[in-house]
Amino acid sequence: MTARDASRRTPDVPDLVTRAREGDARAVARLISLVENASPLLPDVAAALAPHTGNARIIGLTGSPGVGKSTSTTALVRAFRDRELRVGVLAVDPSSPFSGGALLGDRVRMQDHATDKDVFIRSMASRGHLGGLSWATPQALRVLDAAGCDVILVETVGVGQAEVDIASSADTTVVLLAPGMGDGIQAAKAGILEIADIFVVNKADRDGADTTVRDLRYMLSLGGRHSEAGSWRPPILKTVASRSEGVEEVLDAIAKHRDWMAAKGELARRRTARACAEIEAIAVQTLRERMGDVHGSAGLPALAERVVAGETDPYTAAAEIVESL
Amino acid sequence: MTARDASRRTPDVPDLVTRAREGDARAVARLISLVENASPLLPDVAAALAPHTGNARIIGLTGSPGVGKSTSTTALVRAFRDRELRVGVLAVDPSSPFSGGALLGDRVRMQDHATDKDVFIRSMASRGHLGGLSWATPQALRVLDAAGCDVILVETVGVGQAEVDIASSADTTVVLLAPGMGDGIQAAKAGILEIADIFVVNKADRDGADTTVRDLRYMLSLGGRHSEAGSWRPPILKTVASRSEGVEEVLDAIAKHRDWMAAKGELARRRTARACAEIEAIAVQTLRERMGDVHGSAGLPALAERVVAGETDPYTAAAEIVESL
Repeated sequence: MTARDASRRTPDVPDLVTRAREGDARAVARLISLVENASPLLPDVAAALAPHTGNARIIGLTGSPGVGKSTSTTALVRAFRDRELRVGVLAVDPSSPFSGGALLGDRVRMQDHATDKDVFIRSMASRGHLGGLSWATPQALRVLDAAGCDVILVETVGVGQAEVDIASSADTTVVLLAPGMGDGIQAAKAGILEIADIFVVNKADRDGADTTVRDLRYMLSLGGRHSEAGSWRPPILKTVASRSEGVEEVLDAIAKHRDWMAAKGELARRRTARACAEIEAIAVQTLRERMGDVHGSAGLPALAERVVAGETDPYTAAAEIVESL
Repeated sequence: MTARDASRRTPDVPDLVTRAREGDARAVARLISLVENASPLLPDVAAALAPHTGNARIIGLTGSPGVGKSTSTTALVRAFRDRELRVGVLAVDPSSPFSGGALLGDRVRMQDHATDKDVFIRSMASRGHLGGLSWATPQALRVLDAAGCDVILVETVGVGQAEVDIASSADTTVVLLAPGMGDGIQAAKAGILEIADIFVVNKADRDGADTTVRDLRYMLSLGGRHSEAGSWRPPILKTVASRSEGVEEVLDAIAKHRDWMAAKGELARRRTARACAEIEAIAVQTLRERMGDVHGSAGLPALAERVVAGETDPYTAAAEIVESL
């Protein structure tokens, strides 16, 4: 092993965190890789980051494929940069065991802002581990937070459970739609109506934009959390992200939502709930590993074979495992 | 409380299981509701079902919205019924906190087979709980299995993590695509290429069907688990489900895949791996509840507030919780 290999294998965590805080993009990337790969150093990373976090505003950006998420992200980054804010982007892709990672290469995505030292863009595969997003995303956000990002955009591809997880990671969740995609029903199915703090109908120069706005307004009128007294009523905005039209209004709505949350104590509530979920997820992961240590090589598979044979049931088997911990 | 109320609240599990085994659709529905609602009776249900399970062939059916999943399910059910098999259908929808359940009502879905006592159709909301699919789906499958279903189709709406979960529940996973939907790239993103045992290009009478087949063939040639020696090479079939064209060939491919799995010992391996995951998920759930008992009211939120304030980090907090269990 060369000295170089050794240093690659055991990174100096405090040094990485110091460099990340100074805005060193490579240190930021390295720390996020440690998170993504579930490095055994994660507890050290988390401890070193902790005192330097809590400043970034975290904005979730989600919507079905084809609504223009990447274009919108680019336009939002540009608008935040115009306000001289340091911006992080975390693009979370659904796990792809086939490609072993994200199909959208970071290189492609970074072109627009490649030379801007105040923009960090990173895509992250969620790797399909149970509760993957729920612990990896918050840790990666902490890295970008500690690196001095004023704003972090978390962009998700696809629709479904991932979006609900992202919503629980974000201070403000922006749901993107586009005209004529049957998004109304799809949105309701995925529960994204419920998680949206702000709706953006992108590609608003196309036919059907007003219909989409009307459909959304109707579905919102049907109820849900937004209908409670004193609750936030999500605005429905229109953009043409490719021409940056309407993007300033999105930034204003984000700022307004943040003010509302601060006034209502909602920001602290969301962040505490998020930290609760995060602690719980890590605790569960620790217990899961302990379970593997006790039962991995023999006990669990043997019990599973008895379940398959109908000799016992999974609840009885699980109780045996828990009692033996 | 009337006698009727009392009997509704504490169902007689052995009686329900006996009736379900005799093919009583209401008893089957009742048992699946107990699963879906995470009834405290679940361990009793699982224990009573165990001796009567293991016979059903479990077939996952997945694909993006618009490929014709419901039509394909209907055509497959009809074809299996022509072979005089008893069929169960479990349609798993992504969680929708907005609607509180599935948007496709069971009534709508059941019309075609409503009078057939050898077809059970049930849609199930996944409710968004962590690992929701991973424990609720297998339990519901056990109910249908014990009810004497020879074949159970598990249909998922949407694309993403849910599909990977379903694949791990199924003996054979059928991935549906349709021409001209940009499915190639989408499929790769969601990792469904990796989980497919059989590909079906539905709506094969439309333009672009051959292109979709060619794209799939190309992507499969790029590698993944199918390229290993002795591995199953997923066939690519074409159907027009609305006219039941090509459906017999899908049934033949499913039978062939099953024979291959049996010959290779793969069926037992998959089922054991599935039972392992199931036991582990239940054990984790038990530990999570215990964690809630210990920390729910005070400890966890207090720790979370310290994490939000940057006074501690989530790993240190999680370690405190685990040690106190």
